[in-house]
This record gives sequence, structure tokens and C-alpha cells, in this order.
Amino acid sequence: MAKKYVIGLDYGSLSGRAVLVDVENGREVATSVFEYPHAVMDEYLPDGVTKLGYDWALQDPQDYLDVLSNTIPAVLRDAQAAPEDVIGVGIDFTACTVLPVKKDGTPLCFLPEYKSNPHSYVKLWKHHAAQPWANKLNEIASERGEEFLSRYGGKISSEWLFPKLWQILDEAPEIYKAMDCFVEAADWMVWQLTGELKRNSCTAGYKAIWNKKKGYPSKEFFRALDVRLENVVEDKLSTDIYSLGQKAGEITAEAARLTGLCEGTAVAVANVDAHVAIPAVGITEHGKMLMILGTSTCHIFLGEEEKVVPGMCGVVEDGVLPGFMGYEAGQSCVGDHFDWFVKTCVPKRYYDEAEALDMNIHKLLREKAKKLAVGESGLLALDWWNGNRSVLVDVDLTGVMCGMTLLTKPEEIYRALIEATAYGTRMIVETFKENGVPITELYAAGGISQKDELMMQIYSDVTNMEIRIADSLQAPALGSAMFGALAAGAERGGYDNIVDAAKAMSKVKDYVYRPIAENVTVYDRLFAEYKRLHDYYGRGENDVLKHLKEIKKEAACAKK
Amino acid sequence: MAKKYVIGLDYGSLSGRAVLVDVENGREVATSVFEYPHAVMDEYLPDGVTKLGYDWALQDPQDYLDVLSNTIPAVLRDAQAAPEDVIGVGIDFTACTVLPVKKDGTPLCFLPEYKSNPHSYVKLWKHHAAQPWANKLNEIASERGEEFLSRYGGKISSEWLFPKLWQILDEAPEIYKAMDCFVEAADWMVWQLTGELKRNSCTAGYKAIWNKKKGYPSKEFFRALDVRLENVVEDKLSTDIYSLGQKAGEITAEAARLTGLCEGTAVAVANVDAHVAIPAVGITEHGKMLMILGTSTCHIFLGEEEKVVPGMCGVVEDGVLPGFMGYEAGQSCVGDHFDWFVKTCVPKRYYDEAEALDMNIHKLLREKAKKLAVGESGLLALDWWNGNRSVLVDVDLTGVMCGMTLLTKPEEIYRALIEATAYGTRMIVETFKENGVPITELYAAGGISQKDELMMQIYSDVTNMEIRIADSLQAPALGSAMFGALAAGAERGGYDNIVDAAKAMSKVKDYVYRPIAENVTVYDRLFAEYKRLHDYYGRGENDVLKHLKEIKKEAACAKK
Repeated sequence: MAKKYVIGLDYGSLSGRAVLVDVENGREVATSVFEYPHAVMDEYLPDGVTKLGYDWALQDPQDYLDVLSNTIPAVLRDAQAAPEDVIGVGIDFTACTVLPVKKDGTPLCFLPEYKSNPHSYVKLWKHHAAQPWANKLNEIASERGEEFLSRYGGKISSEWLFPKLWQILDEAPEIYKAMDCFVEAADWMVWQLTGELKRNSCTAGYKAIWNKKKGYPSKEFFRALDVRLENVVEDKLSTDIYSLGQKAGEITAEAARLTGLCEGTAVAVANVDAHVAIPAVGITEHGKMLMILGTSTCHIFLGEEEKVVPGMCGVVEDGVLPGFMGYEAGQSCVGDHFDWFVKTCVPKRYYDEAEALDMNIHKLLREKAKKLAVGESGLLALDWWNGNRSVLVDVDLTGVMCGMTLLTKPEEIYRALIEATAYGTRMIVETFKENGVPITELYAAGGISQKDELMMQIYSDVTNMEIRIADSLQAPALGSAMFGALAAGAERGGYDNIVDAAKAMSKVKDYVYRPIAENVTVYDRLFAEYKRLHDYYGRGENDVLKHLKEIKKEAACAKK
Repeated sequence: MAKKYVIGLDYGSLSGRAVLVDVENGREVATSVFEYPHAVMDEYLPDGVTKLGYDWALQDPQDYLDVLSNTIPAVLRDAQAAPEDVIGVGIDFTACTVLPVKKDGTPLCFLPEYKSNPHSYVKLWKHHAAQPWANKLNEIASERGEEFLSRYGGKISSEWLFPKLWQILDEAPEIYKAMDCFVEAADWMVWQLTGELKRNSCTAGYKAIWNKKKGYPSKEFFRALDVRLENVVEDKLSTDIYSLGQKAGEITAEAARLTGLCEGTAVAVANVDAHVAIPAVGITEHGKMLMILGTSTCHIFLGEEEKVVPGMCGVVEDGVLPGFMGYEAGQSCVGDHFDWFVKTCVPKRYYDEAEALDMNIHKLLREKAKKLAVGESGLLALDWWNGNRSVLVDVDLTGVMCGMTLLTKPEEIYRALIEATAYGTRMIVETFKENGVPITELYAAGGISQKDELMMQIYSDVTNMEIRIADSLQAPALGSAMFGALAAGAERGGYDNIVDAAKAMSKVKDYVYRPIAENVTVYDRLFAEYKRLHDYYGRGENDVLKHLKEIKKEAACAKK
């Protein structure tokens, strides 16, 4: 009997990938990556003339279609797999990554009349130019005592759907008017494959303030934002939301031509890249937190009840796996931290040494940092170089470091930055615990988790918890493939529920990081110091970081 | 008529120099520098076998004599000056730099029986191995409520005379017994030149707890330290102290042979390198503070009355100029700060850029930092990389920096470090003002003051005061030369009082740094933030820096 395959499509910030996965055991048989030709547009539109504003970040949806036509045929070819052996497709995407489209799904930026209008393009998750609208939204929601705020740590991010949509309404009312739909790229991809718009519960819940029981915020709320937004849900969104794990539809004839897959192949409801990694590491029960370590860290875990936890990014019913409350938290500066450090603070002789040893500079620093005992650096940092997402939800916070002496070495600072992110993680874990959401085990995915043993051991020591590591560098694609297998169903060779799929297809490494008792003791003392400074700088005892930022802004303005 | 000259001898940490100065106008006619062959001994004695302990720093007094025999003939030769045209000699030295000697002035380390005993050598100012004795001394003095503590900011430093002497008593009682005198190298040099021991009021006051009115601490106090110390003053020191500005004696026949000077040439009472710079910049009245900027900064100024100011290093009557209260304060990490930074934190591409521009790395950073507006970096640092001398007198404090983001650049950190030292200076100025010692004008000497316009302008803006710059890189030697001219007296072509000498011989640059109003406004706001963090971390509100240091020590110990 021929093997059965599923395809996981994973859309990142700079490229999209297809991974062909063996349904039986989760083996990744073939992978193909396609870099977006337009990458991230943050200065000009593709015409090379239309300039974008500060903090803009756009994409061209044609790039997403090109991923389909390039990568799917490639993995079929590489694996010498027949299209009929592929039983299902799952998709995950960055979020909130949204675009305005016509009723038939045509992106406005494909139409000649809107091609030069920046607002007709995809707004990538890290388009931060909607911050003023997020601020207004939060202010009004807070004044009105909108209960939804508590589900999002008290604040709606500028990255999310409504601030982005409101920015369009204000700055390009003609685009707002011309769009029939404002849609997550994740759902738009499913639409392109199946011909049907089936919005998923994950992005709706985490990014569009939708709740399974309560729906979207009220018309009164939207009216309070702007009278023109009163009917925004009916006009530009929809109230039909599909739970993760459902089948969205089947590959159309047109999509079959584009991808080389068979018409009728099952396609799953779409998902978000971080959230979809949960089943890929085999998590199908509550209390296990997955950290996806990248430039920033996303924390995803399952709970049994909806609890209000200060500083969480969101809690969404069916937002991660059907039947669970999906919780999300985040740290906004992890890999970015170390990249900043090696670019800004590492001296020449360290680069020379790395070169002589033919070693990556990060590896050199880790090797040196590994030799330090816990606490030996005398340094302590607050990991706020890019603000604090959880648990303070405050983009205006900045980095702090203390304990430097004339003997402080680069590897000590490097280690202090790693430790700072570990303390940040512990703050998140403890805050959830204190608010009735128990977390008993950690999982890690993302490149750092596989490359950086030092960091993983520090995380284990700081949190005093075991850590299991994803055995795939493509955990999101693997997770998406599992949802593809669910969409196909057991009858067609897939699975009928996620527990079965995860049992068969998930992958974690044999090696488990376990806390080392003597390290835990010292880190407990250091964490107590971290926590005190965290609250001092972060909870209003001394708002020096904000004052500095204000002075900085004034200085930059005065200079212009 | 032949010109009249004076010679200023300036003994630093690594070399000694002679400067031949025109008595009439202070012109530096010739300079000769002699590097100490033994430099600083911090690992082994000259025998290459006897190992020194942690934090030791010794010198060989033969090097000081070699300075005389090498540099004085050299400046006479270079200037084609006749020995009889030299009317006086003044000497300044690092302090507290002390050595045990026999009754005739012979250093114990010159005697074969003590040659292999580290305690027989000169203990350089930065010999910090007497810290345990300083701690005990402070504890006992504090318990006994000794009033002298208040004249030294509440603490006696491990660098000073009694901790060093007590260390000898405990670790090498045979040396303690064998010495007839424990003497400052400054006074020992005068002794070598004149055949007479004339201890100066500057080192006695600042380093040996001597006071013009009250003398040394009581026998009871010394007995409380150690019964063997009860008569330490009579046994190893002396109560004859000579005021600065006095003549110590005249060149002996032997010294004339060594130096090429005429027998009978006047020699001034010795001085400390920082303090002697005061008249060199023309300060002869109260309210003007001189900052000598080097690896650390020493602040010297004159007051009319003795006031107790928290955190000052010392207040000594006649300690700087006769007839004034001489005040000293200090910042322990200034030039060292920037050296640490360029060695530890400046990335390769900055070095490449500096090399391409054929520019010193400090200059490149300053050029970049100059382009920043006040407050634009968003950074704020506490300048405690090497502890805090004034006003907190706490070696256990360490550095703090806050405000970092992923866009923070090296030149911003560099500028923040400069600003931190400027805030530290303002803390000192304000603390003195608040305690009844007015400071109205600033003067600066030392290499940094002439090379670093950015830093001087920042100091002016932060303190909102004018700053005048010494027009000599050898301000201490010039000051010593003035004291040489005083020792000679007007009748022999010198001067009878320091005001006349300073009027004729002192030198400041024409360019005066003046505060820029809009910068002052912003720095006032930033200083308020600095002050708050200074008190938070430095005055017991949160002792995190000390906790980190304790943990660090434990970690280092556990590792061994």
C-alpha cells in the first residue's frame, strides 16, 4: 500500500515553506522554501516611488501564491510522491497579517486603480504604524469598562486587526469603502485553495477580539470609536468563525492546477504559526507550556477554564486546540537581544578569536559564558530592550542592566541577557500560576531551542522545571500537517481527533533538560532581585524609563 | 641678567618627571621623564621569585632616586641652564605611597636582610591588600564615635597610611620593629635632597588622619586597634608637620652630586600630585573647584571654614594652600570607564572605521556622540563601575545603565558614560553646596580636559557652570615649581607668597566652556532621574548591587 502524506504550509515573515509529512509517523519527507520576492516592504511600494511612512510593514499577496506554485510541486517531486497520496493540507501564517479584498477574494492591491495606494496591500504583523489607533481604542475601551480587555492583558496591540483597519478608514477611506472583506492572510490562503472564506477561531480570537461565547465587541463600542465603524463586523468581517481542527473545504480545480495537488484534497481551517506548534510537540493536555523561541518568544498553552491573567496576550476558547482554552503570552526581545549585542557590543578581539576558531560569534560567547558559575558575573538585567509584552504589556519600557565593574567581560553580559529572558519567562509562569492557571512542564521549539544548550539549561534552572525540545525545526509546518490529517479524517487515512494525530506524528527529542539543584538555589535569589527591579521599574514605583523615553522623543523632535 | 628657573618634580605611578620652569612667567622650558625600571610590582618582588598576594602594589625607591639623577641633569642640559640659575625645587608625589626606613632614611628594602620581604618595599597608593585592616579600623572608630571620621566622609580608605602600617605589623612584625620611620615617599624625597625629614601637612592631613588643631587620633584609639599600636605616632611617625609653602631645607652636597644642582638650592615641603595643581591653574581663593581628570577624578578646592560634608575624601587645614581649608573629593571611575568600554563593548566595525579614518577609537566615538542631542540616546547610567568614592564612599557599588533598546548604538552608550561621570561631579558639587561649602567655578586639568571638548561641554551643561582648562599637561609639576619658587623667596628671585607666584606663573587656556541654556534645561531633568536612582541604589533603598556582589563572591569561591 502506498504511503499517505499530508502537507503543512508555513508562512513566515520572509518566506513560505511546504513540508511533506508521512501521516503515519510524522516523518518530514521533503521540504521546500520559497523566499518572498517582495520580502517586507517598509520603505517603498513595489513601484519604487511611493514612499511608506514610519513603522510601516507591508507584503504583496502574490508572493504567497507563488509559494504554493513553487513549493508544493517541489516537495512532491523531491519525495517522488503522487498527488493522490496527499490526503490533506494545513496552513499556518504569521498573524495578525491582514489584507483588504473584494467579494471574490481579489486583493485590492491587484487592481490597477489601487496599486499605488499603500493601504491596499497586506499589513504584516509587524506593521506598527497603527499605534495611535490602538492607543485610542484602548483608551475608549478602558473608559467604557469593556470586559474584553481583561482577556488580552488589559491592552489591544497595534499589531492587531482593528487598529490596522481603523488606520485604513482614517487614512484611506476609499480603500475602506472599496474592500468587501478585511481578512487574515491565513484565511485568505485557505480561500485561494478551497474557494471558500472560512475564518479561523485562532486569529479571530487572538487578533480580532472575537470570543466563542460573546462574539465581537458591541456595535456601541465600535460606534464609540468612530461612527463609521458601527457596522464594521457585518460590513468587513463576518460572524461565521470556524474552530481549529475542522475541515475548511477541498482543493478546487484552479488550486489543483496551481499546486499539482488533486482536486478534492482536504484543506484544514487555518492557524497561526506559533499556536499550531502545540500538537507538533505532542501537547494535547493542559499545564504544558510551549515556548517558541525566535527573535521574540511566544508562549502557548492549554487551560481548562478561562481565567483572567494580568499581562497575557490573550485567552481564546478553541484558539489552540478544540475543547481547550488557549492561552498566549509573549516576550518581545529574545533572539533580537543577542543579535543586538553581537552587533553593538562585542569587541573586535572576540570576532578575531571566533574567526581563528572558525566558530560563529554566538557560539564563541556561549562557550565562554558556559564556564561561568551561576551568579559569577554579578550582573542582572531586565529584558526590556523591546518593551515588555507579558506580564506588563508596556512597549515604553526599555532595558536595564546593573552590576557592571571594570572587569566585566562580554560573555558575562551575554549570559546576563540570556538569564534576563529566563527570568522574564519565570515571571510569566508565576503570574499564570498565581492566577489559577497551573503550568507544570515546559516545551521549547524554534532554532534557539536546538542550538543553545546553555540557554535551555539556564531556563530549566531558573524556572526549576523540566524542558522538552521539539525534534523538528519546522514544528509549525508539522503542526499544520497534523491539522491537514485531521481535515482528511481517519476514513481517508488521516485522523479523527488531534490526540491520535499528536500521538502518532508529534516529535520531541530524547534529551530532557532537568534543573540542577545548586543552580536553582542561586537563581532563586537572583530572581528575587529581578522581580524587585521588575516591579520598581515596571509598575510605577519609578517611571524613569518612561521619562527617558519622553526626553528622547523631545530631543529627536527638536533636532528635526 | 640670566633667567631664574625653578624645577618641579612630579612622581606618578609609572614614571617621574622634572620640569624646568621660568620663574617669571611659568613657561615650561624643558621636561624630562624617567620611567621607573621596576614600574609597579604586583606579582613578584625584583628577585622574580617572591610572589605577592592579591591586590598588592609595590615600588622600589631606587627608581625614585634614579629619576633625580636622570631627569634633573637632562633638563639643565636641554635648556642650557646653569645650575646656579635654578633657585628652588618643589616635589609632588602620588599618595598615600609609603615606605619603612631606618633613622638615617635608608629604606628597609635596601638592606640585604629584608630584600626578600615584600613588606620592606614602598606600598604604592593603589596597594589595596590592607582592606581588612581598613575595615577593622573603620568599625572600631565608628564604635568609639571617633570624630575624625566625619572629616573623611565617614570612612578611612584602605589606601591610607594606618591600614598599610597595621598590615605590616600583623603580617611582618619584624619589619614593623626594624623600621624607625614610616614615611610618605613625597617626604622621603625631600629628605634625600635636604638631609632632613620634614613631613608635609597635605599627606599627613589627607592620608594619616592628622589635624592641625587636634593632631593624630588618640593613644586610646590606637590601643583599641591593637595594643602594639598604642605609641605608633611617637614610635614610627612624628608630630612635627610642616605646612605647604614652607621651605623644607636646601640641597645637600650629596644631593648636589646626584642632581647637578648647586648645594644650598632651596627645596620646598613636599606635596601630593593632585593638590599641588591648584595654584598651577591660578586658584588662590575659595569656591573654585579643580577637577583632575584621569583614570579617576580628584576634586580639590579651598574653603574658608571646616565643614563636615558627607562623602568627602578629606578636609585638611593648610592641606592645599596655607591659610585655607583644603577639601578633597573623588570619582573612582572616569578615564577607566571609557577604556573599559572600548576594550569590552565597541564592535569591530567601529574599529575598522577608525582605522580607515586613521582616528583613535575614542575620537571616533566622540565624533559620533557629538552629533547626538542632549537626551537623544534615552540612556542613563550610574558611574559606579569602580564603586563610588564621593559622595557615597562605597566600594561595593557597581555600575547601572538603563534605557537600552534594540536601536541603541555604541556612541550612545559612550556618551551616557560621559554623562554619568558629569552627574557624579554635580552630585559632589551639590552636596558641598548643601553643606555650606560653596563652589562657584570649575577648573579642569589632566589629559582628558584638553583632548575631550565634548566631555568638557557636557560637564559645563550638566553642572551649569563655567569651566576653565589648565594650559599645561604638567599642571602638578608646574605647581611644584611654584612651591620651589616660594621656598626660594622673593629675595632670591622667587616669591614670598603663593598668590604672587600663581599670578605670575599659573596658566589656563583662553577658551572657557560655558553652559548652553537649552542643554542645561534637559540635563536638569536627566540629573533629577540620576539623583533618584543614585539614592535608590546607593542609600539602602534597594541593596541589589551589594546582593549581586555577595552572590558573585560566593559563586567565585564555590568554583575554587
